[in-house]
Amino acid sequence: MLKVPDHQVAGHRARDGRLGPLIDDAGRFYKPLQGDERGANEVSFYASFSSNTKIPDHIKSFFPEFDGTRLVEASDGSGMQTHLVLQDLTFGHVNPSIMDIKIGSRTWHPQAPDGYVHRCLKKDRGTSSLPLGFRVSGARIFKSTESGYWEPENRLSIQTLSADEVKLLLKSFVSSNTSEEPHMKPDCAFASTVYGGSNGILSQLVELKAWFEDQTIYHFYSSSVLMMFEKDLASSGKSPRAEIKLVDFAHVHKGNGVIDHNFLGGLCSFIKFISEILTTPEDSSADSLVEDAQRNHIHSENGSVYDVSLN
Amino acid sequence: MLKVPDHQVAGHRARDGRLGPLIDDAGRFYKPLQGDERGANEVSFYASFSSNTKIPDHIKSFFPEFDGTRLVEASDGSGMQTHLVLQDLTFGHVNPSIMDIKIGSRTWHPQAPDGYVHRCLKKDRGTSSLPLGFRVSGARIFKSTESGYWEPENRLSIQTLSADEVKLLLKSFVSSNTSEEPHMKPDCAFASTVYGGSNGILSQLVELKAWFEDQTIYHFYSSSVLMMFEKDLASSGKSPRAEIKLVDFAHVHKGNGVIDHNFLGGLCSFIKFISEILTTPEDSSADSLVEDAQRNHIHSENGSVYDVSLN
Repeated sequence: MLKVPDHQVAGHRARDGRLGPLIDDAGRFYKPLQGDERGANEVSFYASFSSNTKIPDHIKSFFPEFDGTRLVEASDGSGMQTHLVLQDLTFGHVNPSIMDIKIGSRTWHPQAPDGYVHRCLKKDRGTSSLPLGFRVSGARIFKSTESGYWEPENRLSIQTLSADEVKLLLKSFVSSNTSEEPHMKPDCAFASTVYGGSNGILSQLVELKAWFEDQTIYHFYSSSVLMMFEKDLASSGKSPRAEIKLVDFAHVHKGNGVIDHNFLGGLCSFIKFISEILTTPEDSSADSLVEDAQRNHIHSENGSVYDVSLN
Repeated sequence: MLKVPDHQVAGHRARDGRLGPLIDDAGRFYKPLQGDERGANEVSFYASFSSNTKIPDHIKSFFPEFDGTRLVEASDGSGMQTHLVLQDLTFGHVNPSIMDIKIGSRTWHPQAPDGYVHRCLKKDRGTSSLPLGFRVSGARIFKSTESGYWEPENRLSIQTLSADEVKLLLKSFVSSNTSEEPHMKPDCAFASTVYGGSNGILSQLVELKAWFEDQTIYHFYSSSVLMMFEKDLASSGKSPRAEIKLVDFAHVHKGNGVIDHNFLGGLCSFIKFISEILTTPEDSSADSLVEDAQRNHIHSENGSVYDVSLN
């Protein structure tokens, strides 16, 4: 029996009878094929990537496992539809904190038609993508069993964060005090175990970066790095299962002998944000943002300072 | 007495009574200030950069020395005009081979006005910038004392090269046989001494890259890496004086705490091209291009295969 996933942070959702992804209880994620060439493109990427013997195993582990396509009953009641069968990345997780980071200052590929280019360009200019080289496209941060999760009130606000706001969000993501005292300076209690260390997020990102400095097979437009961990494990001193995965390949194109300089540049920018948190957790730029929020009461009902649309 | 430089490969030239840069015989390069905010912006960049104590010396050495501004007689006879006083990068060189590589897939900054964005975007899409992350904006390759220099017949053709054509040009740049047998496969005779080695171009580019992975002070739009060496020295087994310099800072903007992901991505792409020549000089993609040129006689009167406009 397929069901709606609990932990989705971005993309179309299968709630309220709409078309969206489903999961089963064996760890599979069923993503409905987008009707136009995007669906076909994503299938063809997964087929090519999963069978490509030139991709090292440690790089393949950054991608969801692929198990072909299957006809299943769509979540919107429209009957049997083709779905990509992928690994359910949150399978076995209890209360994962998740962020979805769309990488690249440009979400369109060089040969895209003018209309598409201008729509994407407008969005890239209107969000963090152009200034930062990436934009946060979703977040779901576990607070506590009592309080549940923090989520942004609307999806646009989180896509338009400034550099300082992104820094604050990335700190809160690994802090123990995001929940009850939202205006307190995030304590970055789990930064060293989640972002740092030889198995942490930063080290995985750097591994991914090394591949992007070299590989000229694929260019990833509008793909995301998903980053997740279990706060309860971190709190109890256990390994927090911190990991990154790449997702969303409807706009992957051939590299034609050139590295994916757009993705790589954005990835390096994101890496710099994470490494700054590890090297200078006491950096004052985020402090002033917290103070601003306290002074101006720029916060949503659940007390978050992130729901600030900057347009 | 100021005079017109011999070795300029890109930008406005002071020939035929037009406004362009001048040099003196003490190693200084006089660049006329562009009349609009570009001139002021370039002065302010040089002033900021040269006095910034956070820039390490080994990075400063990649930039022309700056000696303020001076009123000198302009090359177009329009009287005294303000010029930037910079280091003449070719001073002391005899027959330098030079290439000018404009780095970045995007030559406009995020806050630029729409009209400017669309003009730049059109050029970035119509040249190598968007697909490759950089475009060759000038080249002057020393052939021999008898034959002089190879230069592209027109400036647009060299800006629109494909990945394979750029690879061929970068090979010819460090070959002994670019001159007399232009359709011969470039022998890459000087690749290991010019591109390779601990003081070579690649090692300098990698040093520059490390700085760009970290620095969040400046974003360089439409700036170039200039790459040069002396073929005669290389031929006679001496150190070829291979070096890179960054030039053209009329469009430098504040980094505001974010790395220059656009420049960095393009720089990494260029690095990949150079390192591929060192690791796989026998790569066949350029061979087929040479064969195509031989078969189809796509070459200019002086026998070059580069003068192929790809629009």
